Amino acid sequence: MKLLTYSLGGVDKVGVIGADGSIIEVPAKSMLEVVCMGDEELAKIKALSLKSGGLSYESITKRAPVPFPAQDIICLGINYMEHAIESYKFKKIEFDGKREYPVYFGKRVNEAVANGDEIPSHSDITDTLDYECELALIIKKDAKNVSEQDANEYIFGWTIINDISSRDIQNRYKQWYYGKSLDNSTPMGPWIVTNDELDTSSLDIKSYINGELRQNSNTSKLIFNPSYIISDLSKGMTLKAGTIISLGTPSGVGMGFTPPKYLKSGDEIVCYIQGIGELKNRVK
Amino acid sequence: MKLLTYSLGGVDKVGVIGADGSIIEVPAKSMLEVVCMGDEELAKIKALSLKSGGLSYESITKRAPVPFPAQDIICLGINYMEHAIESYKFKKIEFDGKREYPVYFGKRVNEAVANGDEIPSHSDITDTLDYECELALIIKKDAKNVSEQDANEYIFGWTIINDISSRDIQNRYKQWYYGKSLDNSTPMGPWIVTNDELDTSSLDIKSYINGELRQNSNTSKLIFNPSYIISDLSKGMTLKAGTIISLGTPSGVGMGFTPPKYLKSGDEIVCYIQGIGELKNRVK
Repeated sequence: MKLLTYSLGGVDKVGVIGADGSIIEVPAKSMLEVVCMGDEELAKIKALSLKSGGLSYESITKRAPVPFPAQDIICLGINYMEHAIESYKFKKIEFDGKREYPVYFGKRVNEAVANGDEIPSHSDITDTLDYECELALIIKKDAKNVSEQDANEYIFGWTIINDISSRDIQNRYKQWYYGKSLDNSTPMGPWIVTNDELDTSSLDIKSYINGELRQNSNTSKLIFNPSYIISDLSKGMTLKAGTIISLGTPSGVGMGFTPPKYLKSGDEIVCYIQGIGELKNRVK
Repeated sequence: MKLLTYSLGGVDKVGVIGADGSIIEVPAKSMLEVVCMGDEELAKIKALSLKSGGLSYESITKRAPVPFPAQDIICLGINYMEHAIESYKFKKIEFDGKREYPVYFGKRVNEAVANGDEIPSHSDITDTLDYECELALIIKKDAKNVSEQDANEYIFGWTIINDISSRDIQNRYKQWYYGKSLDNSTPMGPWIVTNDELDTSSLDIKSYINGELRQNSNTSKLIFNPSYIISDLSKGMTLKAGTIISLGTPSGVGMGFTPPKYLKSGDEIVCYIQGIGELKNRVK
């Protein structure tokens, strides 16, 4: 099923997409409450998804599926080979083609940005704002020492994240944290597709800037796949229920072009992942 | 005043240290609630600190002052010049002596470790566990675009953090996140000293391993001071009330010795900062 968050009278509501494509309200205070539900409660929500006659998607006040992530988002760096090549080229470092270990970093998200909402240009502190279309997963139960074989059981569902990044801040400060954590730099959505309904092993992943195709790859090209990542991280860290992991972006980001094609005020970014949908935002 | 968290009958309580050094219970559900209080409510807690006859510090079940940080902790890397030199030497990179920009990274803290509690050795995944005694601050109100001059008003108080780090994981994964975020790798405490009672511009900062002095510096040697950091980060990010920023460690960490002196099972680590106190933990 597809689960989303919307706002009604200033209050966040959780909804599920019904049989006719309308939004049926789910009896839960937040998406994080739904993420942590047991199978029995989830089955009741699944039953709601067979109903019709709810609100139209166009009419609702959209929110990111998890507007307030419980902890910083864990992101993967250079997790598609062609993006690894463009990143090293940008930094003028020779790339030996080896990727033995994943790159993980934290991204602060005070509040995630909804589908359709504007993102700030942060033009007072950066002129190198960039887009990164990414597949992201949400952990459904605390994961510690999970094997690759069992990892799939820990995934609640999938969404799209646009990992907006300031390249100059990201590089100037050595560690990527600050350049990835500017306010309102995490568009997320449009909804979560639950894991039982989506096989993410081979999904087209694309992004468009003002209609121009920029990124065009497939999740089969991920260097480290979701099960490996959950297993690898959970050796040392407990991934709490609600943890969001964004799996990295393919090549075609702004810094990969010569000259670079950074975002500017007014640009429309569309992130697309097959089986999930489109996440569209404009730079203010 | 000195504020701490302790556990009574399995429930976390907030306490303030009274006139006789005993712990007086504070009417608040959590330290984060106290951090976000207005001046009027805080004055009532200050009045409690004039009382006597509470529980003795030795008798309480100790907790980290903020057992469950609301977001990942923001840490400073190489923020003392002598530690910069030992870090570059460890990585066999020539250091040009320039530090133009701070290094920020996120540290996941599912639960902070109390004074006196054990920390895991994580010997199944690392043999290079290291200690880092650090001064840390807690933000009292949302900070965005704060000037250096005004930054002090946004600081609730100060505590000690031991930024336990796995050097091999930290370096192997390029970004430092994972090597800094192992479970139970953030001893914090013993308490928070409120900002009105502590001038942190020149405090001795030391650590001892099994009684041997290892780190011995002074906060006057910080490259980027707290006001600069709050101003710099808040240009791009809203630092929410409750945000914890750990200001970096001086030289004398295990990796700085030849050969390195990493932590091993049974080692006792004492972190000391003048005006705050001692944070003592043993490696399990």
